Amino acid sequence: MASENVEEVRNKQVIFRGYVSGSPEETDMEVRESTVTLGVPEGSGGVLVKNLYLSCDPYMRLRMRKLDLPSYRDSFEPGSPITGYGVARVLESGHPNFKKGDLVWGMTGWEQYSLITVPETCFKIEHSDVPLSYYIGLLGMPGMTAYAGFFEVCSPKKGETVFISAASGAVGQLVGQFAKLFGCYVVGSAGSKEKVDLLKNKFGFDNAFNYKEELDLDAALKRCFPKGIDIYFENVGGKMLNTVLLNMKLHGRIAVCGMISQYNLEQPEGVHNLMNLILKRVRMEGFLVTDYYHLYPKFLETVLPQIKEGKIEYVEDIAEGLEKGPAALVGLFSGRNVGKQVVVVS
Amino acid sequence: MASENVEEVRNKQVIFRGYVSGSPEETDMEVRESTVTLGVPEGSGGVLVKNLYLSCDPYMRLRMRKLDLPSYRDSFEPGSPITGYGVARVLESGHPNFKKGDLVWGMTGWEQYSLITVPETCFKIEHSDVPLSYYIGLLGMPGMTAYAGFFEVCSPKKGETVFISAASGAVGQLVGQFAKLFGCYVVGSAGSKEKVDLLKNKFGFDNAFNYKEELDLDAALKRCFPKGIDIYFENVGGKMLNTVLLNMKLHGRIAVCGMISQYNLEQPEGVHNLMNLILKRVRMEGFLVTDYYHLYPKFLETVLPQIKEGKIEYVEDIAEGLEKGPAALVGLFSGRNVGKQVVVVS
Repeated sequence: MASENVEEVRNKQVIFRGYVSGSPEETDMEVRESTVTLGVPEGSGGVLVKNLYLSCDPYMRLRMRKLDLPSYRDSFEPGSPITGYGVARVLESGHPNFKKGDLVWGMTGWEQYSLITVPETCFKIEHSDVPLSYYIGLLGMPGMTAYAGFFEVCSPKKGETVFISAASGAVGQLVGQFAKLFGCYVVGSAGSKEKVDLLKNKFGFDNAFNYKEELDLDAALKRCFPKGIDIYFENVGGKMLNTVLLNMKLHGRIAVCGMISQYNLEQPEGVHNLMNLILKRVRMEGFLVTDYYHLYPKFLETVLPQIKEGKIEYVEDIAEGLEKGPAALVGLFSGRNVGKQVVVVS
Repeated sequence: MASENVEEVRNKQVIFRGYVSGSPEETDMEVRESTVTLGVPEGSGGVLVKNLYLSCDPYMRLRMRKLDLPSYRDSFEPGSPITGYGVARVLESGHPNFKKGDLVWGMTGWEQYSLITVPETCFKIEHSDVPLSYYIGLLGMPGMTAYAGFFEVCSPKKGETVFISAASGAVGQLVGQFAKLFGCYVVGSAGSKEKVDLLKNKFGFDNAFNYKEELDLDAALKRCFPKGIDIYFENVGGKMLNTVLLNMKLHGRIAVCGMISQYNLEQPEGVHNLMNLILKRVRMEGFLVTDYYHLYPKFLETVLPQIKEGKIEYVEDIAEGLEKGPAALVGLFSGRNVGKQVVVVS
């Protein structure tokens, strides 16, 4: 029910200052304090939430440009708070699906309190016996991305060879674990020794390498995949994709989830080896998690028990406080984070 | 039955001189005369044929390199005749599937007489009430490529928009006609006014343009596809692919059949716009006709009546005599041919 007597409180926000070219910097955002009315406008159907955790995801870089993609996400609005996935508690609801006290995850604002005007895009959290921050990671958009990307787009078969780039990231660490549980041979690349150790020792990858220390990426891939790659889960693009194309096996599949190495470039790098799509009859498919959310209940049913049985690990990198948000988001693009980057609001 | 008393005759051949880098030239081949024994070695299982028509196909450029692709075609053997698709008459058979007098199509040599040692790869021609040269074009490998590429790889739906590059070529002209008969909106690009006229007036494309005369390929595509492209049938690669990627519609499909613009380059051009695979959730799939020959009977059943009812046109560019073979093959790469390039042997 929408309230009549409403309270006004301070609302710390991370404001998007304007469209960004090149590498984003902390100064492209600004932490400001405004006020918010703790209520839902009569008849608006909105939901007022208190944000608990906010998610830093690579695709957010795309929204820092002027986008003309009605099919994708909108650009951030200069002068308004950053928006993204978050976990929140409902303070006031004008929508029948939600009531005060509910925990939800979905699109919200980078601020202490948000009025969510399209609450249909949020999921109610039914299982709160896991860390709530998982709902912007393992049990949220990145988890669904890994699940749908691997099982729906890659069409895996037991025993196949799987390569994952940005493999210790929010999505990559899960793709690798799903692939291992499914019975594949799994190799990941990452950008530091610490991350490579995680891949091998915590996530159970069969092999891993630090791409920054390999003078010859092609040699690294041939060392890990002497007979070639059946499935490539693409998170980085550019030179890595170009080199993977040389190492694909006949009838291989490439699920194109992201290309983080390209997001800060005005002119993306050229990929020269696409002829291999023909020579090896490879399928390369871009996908977006929003096309697969109908599988979310099935996903939870599969993954929740695996978490409780300790079959799936999840590593998060926690930034404490909205003030740390800009640095956390910007850090994604230099690989500063180890695991899923989370911002704790309160 | 293999014969015991065998005759020796002259055999004109087109010899592959050695691996080629850059643009192939006529002098990379040599027309020579050798002799051949008109018989099949006892117990060899081979078939001796008299070649009637030989096919010039873009993929043959790849075989002029040293290839290490067990999954694809072998390289040509320096000092031996060029090999490729042809239509031939059986003179002598050591194989139970074929008998003297049969007409066949399949892999043969660029010479007057060939001993086909793996006749299982040949098809017997059952319908000879169409031009026999069609069996290296409309009713042969290019026809099957167009059919499988369009119906199996592109997953077309009625009313979708289809773009075809190298659209007047052996494969492209058929993809366009199949797509029109299926109920799609079809646009093709080609490299001369004559070819563009063919597309519009003979093959019934909805629109066509000469890519050599468009200063701005992106503008040309936007003019023809104001709402974008559902299906791209890729024959050329490089700059065209790069520009098409900008114009794909949501959930579009790209069937990668060939990349003729890249075959003569030592370093293929870079494709920069692959991010659009994600933004538009596009599937891009390389294919090879050899994976689809099991559909050949169904293909014939569909296409033979369409030919007889005049619903499908096919334009061939005929070179008379083996001596013309090298120029005809080389001419593919500058677009000299108009329609399917055929070499008549006798």
